[in-house]
Amino acid sequence: MTDLNAYMTGVGEAARGAATLMAAAPTAAKNAALLALARRLRETGPALAAANERDLAAAVGAGLEAPMVDRLRLTPKVLATVAEGCEQIAAMPDPIGEITGVKRRPTGISVGQMRVPLGVFGMIYESRPNVTIEAASLAIKSGNACILRGGSEALHSNLALAALVADSLEEAGLPREAVQLINTTDRAAVGLLIAMPAFVDVIIPRGGKGLIERISREARVPVIKHLDGNCHSYVDAEVDLDLAVTVVDNAKTQKYSPCNATESLLVHAKQAADFLPRIGMVFAAKGVEMRGCERALALLEAVPRDLLKPATPEDWDTEYLAPIISIKIVDSLDEAIAHINRHGSHHTDAILTTNHVSAMRFLREVDSASVMVNASTRFADGFEYGLGAEIGISTDKFHARGPVGLEGLTSMKWVVLGQGEIRS
Amino acid sequence: MTDLNAYMTGVGEAARGAATLMAAAPTAAKNAALLALARRLRETGPALAAANERDLAAAVGAGLEAPMVDRLRLTPKVLATVAEGCEQIAAMPDPIGEITGVKRRPTGISVGQMRVPLGVFGMIYESRPNVTIEAASLAIKSGNACILRGGSEALHSNLALAALVADSLEEAGLPREAVQLINTTDRAAVGLLIAMPAFVDVIIPRGGKGLIERISREARVPVIKHLDGNCHSYVDAEVDLDLAVTVVDNAKTQKYSPCNATESLLVHAKQAADFLPRIGMVFAAKGVEMRGCERALALLEAVPRDLLKPATPEDWDTEYLAPIISIKIVDSLDEAIAHINRHGSHHTDAILTTNHVSAMRFLREVDSASVMVNASTRFADGFEYGLGAEIGISTDKFHARGPVGLEGLTSMKWVVLGQGEIRS
Repeated sequence: MTDLNAYMTGVGEAARGAATLMAAAPTAAKNAALLALARRLRETGPALAAANERDLAAAVGAGLEAPMVDRLRLTPKVLATVAEGCEQIAAMPDPIGEITGVKRRPTGISVGQMRVPLGVFGMIYESRPNVTIEAASLAIKSGNACILRGGSEALHSNLALAALVADSLEEAGLPREAVQLINTTDRAAVGLLIAMPAFVDVIIPRGGKGLIERISREARVPVIKHLDGNCHSYVDAEVDLDLAVTVVDNAKTQKYSPCNATESLLVHAKQAADFLPRIGMVFAAKGVEMRGCERALALLEAVPRDLLKPATPEDWDTEYLAPIISIKIVDSLDEAIAHINRHGSHHTDAILTTNHVSAMRFLREVDSASVMVNASTRFADGFEYGLGAEIGISTDKFHARGPVGLEGLTSMKWVVLGQGEIRS
Repeated sequence: MTDLNAYMTGVGEAARGAATLMAAAPTAAKNAALLALARRLRETGPALAAANERDLAAAVGAGLEAPMVDRLRLTPKVLATVAEGCEQIAAMPDPIGEITGVKRRPTGISVGQMRVPLGVFGMIYESRPNVTIEAASLAIKSGNACILRGGSEALHSNLALAALVADSLEEAGLPREAVQLINTTDRAAVGLLIAMPAFVDVIIPRGGKGLIERISREARVPVIKHLDGNCHSYVDAEVDLDLAVTVVDNAKTQKYSPCNATESLLVHAKQAADFLPRIGMVFAAKGVEMRGCERALALLEAVPRDLLKPATPEDWDTEYLAPIISIKIVDSLDEAIAHINRHGSHHTDAILTTNHVSAMRFLREVDSASVMVNASTRFADGFEYGLGAEIGISTDKFHARGPVGLEGLTSMKWVVLGQGEIRS
């Protein structure tokens, strides 16, 4: 334990030192490191494969389920995708150093804001080793240092990837310690990482709700996180029904596991008799279980019995991440907004409407990180929003909200430019 | 205690309800409430005076020192100043509803960001009752609800001011509960206020370091705070000496108690022999004690002995808020930046220089909320920065950094405008 303390303090100090250098690093050097990393990811097949095989063999030996083992696998396709991601981030504008809003004040000073890195971020994630490269590439471009703690089942793969990152940094004249991977599976390392405010400026957890709740509770530094994605699609009193069926179908069924999939459907009473039987048959054909309020169930009579259930109060608060959807009929836009603000998780919610006033009220009054009009909730994603890459999605209102890309890893400081002004 | 729990829950629920209405309130109504409040502050002399007299009498009776009693006093001048503040905030543009950066994505959706209120903020402050009006007016304009907890010695004054606020809100058709003052001096109320994430989105403490440390440690919601203002002025190797003397003098001596006063002076060795004797005589004339490194003391020989002391290691970390300054000679810009980043409190730091490269490096590399070139650190202030008003100064990197005005009380959410787009 004393050794672990010393190890983590060493990692923290090295990260803080590297962060100072990264903050001042030229854009060209950061891009060179990213391009070198992309090249190494494509070239360094055998060494990576050997490390990955060790993790895969251990996972199979430990009896991990096949989908979990698959997530560990660094196939040439996975490596090509993360290499391409590095090249895309290299091609993006450097967010650091941008000075905005400089205004001359009556006293003579000019005041503006400069975008700077946050410093050091700690990232705690599970399973998929490609997250190691995603986090590293965002850290490099945003001028931060990072400390990565991946899943223990991916340790050898992550160490091999982190070595490629360090070599690429060095090749570009940047500090190897800008991206460090914690080289132990000791779980106490997480507890130390989240409680080093002197060395770590923010923690970004990616994983199950249990992990994120524990980190939020125990962290002594800010955490960028989202817990639930209990997302809603609301079909308004005035709506294009064909469009609504297409979008709601996509929002629920295009994929069941992402956090931005719709989990709850609200339908205005005026449209329920027309809309619900249609979407009900679409869901039924895909085997989606419908948990409805009493009025909704009455309109879903054509749906096979085994896919229909009365909704319990808990259903309104549940993120299923599965082929299940809760359905409620509401009598007004006000009721829909109040329901979403009370039961939703402030992640992503959409209205389907042709009424401008409804659309604007929904955008303003629904208190969520992403609010949408006539689009699938599945669009809530850093790539889809044009951020180039995403380190996570935040349901906090502070700092980064919604998909977090390069800018979410920066901070704005005030700059004052004077010619000897003094305050009177 | 059960009663206090129930009371605070009631306050929290009322605030959350009011916040929903305030978020959707028209700009005209918010401005009308602010102008009504300004009018009432000017007109309601006698009732306010009676409440204020009760607090003043109690304070004198309890043996409070005269400066503390003075800070409690609501003179006509103090009331005129806060009334004017309300009018200024009414005249400012409404930050809420602004939609920025809307861009069309290849999928067809348009993605942008909308500025919305944070929701409910809790403010914990000491002594001066005019803070009640400052916080209330910022809450109203930014579309937030707030829960105020003032000092117990100002309770009657604060209650009288809060009643004016509630009447003004009602006159403008807004909810009285948008601004609530906690009507008890029970200290347990603070502990409850900072641990109600369901009702409170952010806590803003204003007061001594002990109060702020306790709140930061125990809060279960985000805190906008600054702990220390250990601000530096650094005199570079190339400098206009007359300008440097004027600015450093102002930064240290214009007022000793504000958090943005300079506490530590760094001087490049090349300028020390010319600069230190001059600034030393300026400080000496004002009775400022100088705690210097060995080399600095050697150059301050003309200063009376009783104003000179060798600096101890603690001096580099100390915010004096008094006529004392620590002085160190450095051999390079690098050493100055490293010293500031290590010993400063990331609040406000200034460089005095005529060298462009030094200026730009200082701006980029000093990790503080405000960084300045050739200006007095005393300028770090919401009014001086043109924010119109200031609810506090933040040394956090997250969300609001530096002086916090209306925008610091808002959040940006993503808006997606579609025509039925789905994700493929």
